Amino acid sequence: MNASYRIQSFHPPRRTLLGPGPSEMHPRVIASLAQTVVGYLDPAFVSMMEELKELLRYAFQTTNPLTFPLSGPGSVGMEACFVNLVEPGDKVIVCRNGVFGGRMLENVERCGGVPVVLDETWGEPIDPAKLEDLLEAHPDTKTVAFVHAETSTGAQSDAQALCDVARRHGALIIVDAVTSLGGTPVLVDAWQADAVYSASQKCLSCTPGLSPVSFSERAIAKVKARTRGKVQSWFMDLNLVLSYWGETQRTYHHTAPGNSLYALHEALLLLKEEGLENAWGRHQRNHEAMKAGLEALGLQYLVREGARLPQMNAVHIPAGVDDLAVRKTLLNEYNIEIGAGLGPLAGKVWRFGLMGYSSQPENVLLALSALSAVLAEQGYSHEAGAAEAAAHRAYADHHTRAAAQSGKTPIAPQQ
Amino acid sequence: MNASYRIQSFHPPRRTLLGPGPSEMHPRVIASLAQTVVGYLDPAFVSMMEELKELLRYAFQTTNPLTFPLSGPGSVGMEACFVNLVEPGDKVIVCRNGVFGGRMLENVERCGGVPVVLDETWGEPIDPAKLEDLLEAHPDTKTVAFVHAETSTGAQSDAQALCDVARRHGALIIVDAVTSLGGTPVLVDAWQADAVYSASQKCLSCTPGLSPVSFSERAIAKVKARTRGKVQSWFMDLNLVLSYWGETQRTYHHTAPGNSLYALHEALLLLKEEGLENAWGRHQRNHEAMKAGLEALGLQYLVREGARLPQMNAVHIPAGVDDLAVRKTLLNEYNIEIGAGLGPLAGKVWRFGLMGYSSQPENVLLALSALSAVLAEQGYSHEAGAAEAAAHRAYADHHTRAAAQSGKTPIAPQQ
Repeated sequence: MNASYRIQSFHPPRRTLLGPGPSEMHPRVIASLAQTVVGYLDPAFVSMMEELKELLRYAFQTTNPLTFPLSGPGSVGMEACFVNLVEPGDKVIVCRNGVFGGRMLENVERCGGVPVVLDETWGEPIDPAKLEDLLEAHPDTKTVAFVHAETSTGAQSDAQALCDVARRHGALIIVDAVTSLGGTPVLVDAWQADAVYSASQKCLSCTPGLSPVSFSERAIAKVKARTRGKVQSWFMDLNLVLSYWGETQRTYHHTAPGNSLYALHEALLLLKEEGLENAWGRHQRNHEAMKAGLEALGLQYLVREGARLPQMNAVHIPAGVDDLAVRKTLLNEYNIEIGAGLGPLAGKVWRFGLMGYSSQPENVLLALSALSAVLAEQGYSHEAGAAEAAAHRAYADHHTRAAAQSGKTPIAPQQ
Repeated sequence: MNASYRIQSFHPPRRTLLGPGPSEMHPRVIASLAQTVVGYLDPAFVSMMEELKELLRYAFQTTNPLTFPLSGPGSVGMEACFVNLVEPGDKVIVCRNGVFGGRMLENVERCGGVPVVLDETWGEPIDPAKLEDLLEAHPDTKTVAFVHAETSTGAQSDAQALCDVARRHGALIIVDAVTSLGGTPVLVDAWQADAVYSASQKCLSCTPGLSPVSFSERAIAKVKARTRGKVQSWFMDLNLVLSYWGETQRTYHHTAPGNSLYALHEALLLLKEEGLENAWGRHQRNHEAMKAGLEALGLQYLVREGARLPQMNAVHIPAGVDDLAVRKTLLNEYNIEIGAGLGPLAGKVWRFGLMGYSSQPENVLLALSALSAVLAEQGYSHEAGAAEAAAHRAYADHHTRAAAQSGKTPIAPQQ
């Protein structure tokens, strides 16, 4: 209690954020945070909440009325899906191919559900045929849960195929779209998913601490028809949260995180202005340039082609290279944050996130150039400038293709 | 999905916030929000977290190492205390004299605890003698829970006396200090309370969405010694949260709400600079002026003298006056938010919050003047200018007393 005289106002360093999130925020989003707060039932605030729900429906590609941001990080979104939809004794198939599938399993157990685990190698997507087999072996399965985009590995599963299988077997479907929303297609209505959660600080590039969720009519019916006791969490009980975020009423549930919601509104507006398809295209384009550069450095992806998330590039750390030294030098000398490996991948992979506003060509070039320099210092042999040149070619190829599609002449190199 | 073209950037109106929270933020706190985000394991961020814990220990007047902000609103703080400390079958005495005691009861039930309710009239503080009687009738009580400052009524209970009784009977103690922290003394170590939670948007005047908590060694021992299953919430499990906020390790649990934490750091720094005693004195001073003005208008407090929270002034709505019309006019014509009654007090009381940065003489004078005008429009008979004059006298009396204490001559009225 006596040493705090030395504490001063905190001013964070300026980082280029190329890890697993948070991603960087657009200046408009940062500015939106710095506004006065208003009451949680202020008519102006309530109107903003309605717009937020509409913008989130666009992001999730859904008409679900119950689409809104929960007042907590993605882990709250995950837990809210499980505590509401899983009743004690319910059998739940959990697909686990990374950290977040493991967290789903923890949630099922803590809800008193009966988990059946579909384990897959980390870095592999979930195989719909294996899910089909498991559902046939467990016809009393009430719910199937899987992670669309595994942040811990960079693998993307085929959500449409997994949902089709689960739907055929009459199971409810919980989908983790934390890292996919805004970066790759999340099509809640087309998938017929029942409970989908995401997070604010990945491809939406908003301040961390909010978890957008969307629930189908079937999910709501399940919550309302619970027979084995109340939802175990008061804070996450949809029956109560609905009284604040629902369509018809507005009564106090908890004090809404006003400034963070302003920021989410602005981040979603930016996504709407860019257009979802354009945002997906941008993530893909920068991924391709990053991939060209990383491969030119001789680095190998953890995930096979075709199952890679453009927004999360996990590559094996080359033998003889010091993981921590590389990450520390990138941070301390170049102000670049990249992600470390988690769990069994700790010390084995680096994770280069290119999420939301962080997914920009300038960040790709900077990351490749800095990584190239740091690897050279580590004595890792590679051709100087090769990574940058490979990325340049990828962008040039894209410009050529785009010009061809639009019927215009590409920019000619100066003689 | 097709109407969002009309959505524009959100800019809230500028309100004077005199309700139950959020309170207004100091310009330094607002500015602190508008900074770039950094990674949740960034060394600069981790240093800031350590400072935050130190500043919170000062605010809570504790040396508890486990003192930190949870990543959710006060309701998460409440739920975290119950899910960690209450095991299925544990008997818990819940003191209920307002909305938040009722919410505690909900939490006990959802944790599988066996609640014993000490019901008190809304507006009254909890009587330590009644708690003593109940503990004697229920010697197997594991935990006592009460609300220090009931936001729904403006009543403050004697936390020291209640804790003394509970301690004598060997019960763990959970205290809701949501509305008291920073406004009236919260003395965690002196009370020997075991789990205390608060919120960012009341007398700390920070952005809503964080819940500062403090746990005693006894509380931690209880969590670690649980025998009847894991904490039912993964997100709130202290065993896991500790891996991120604890003393020795720093491992990923969830992505911290960076910008909100910057704001809490700044808000707590402001409190430290002002000094806790000075902040308590300011809340008391503005309360006395507000009280003088409200009573000059003929309004009666819900809570008896001696049990009133200076930061939450609940007064009966005079007969014949239209509750909603008054609040709407205050909001629409004067941009002033005040609080409505909750539950059985709906339509019966107004709640004037003077919390944190909102507790300023200029807000007191504005509120009294605007209320006086609106009541006159409503045909409620009172002497014009009387409320303002009463508040002026209260401030003048304070200045005289302060000058006498400091040995200086008070400002003499100009002739």
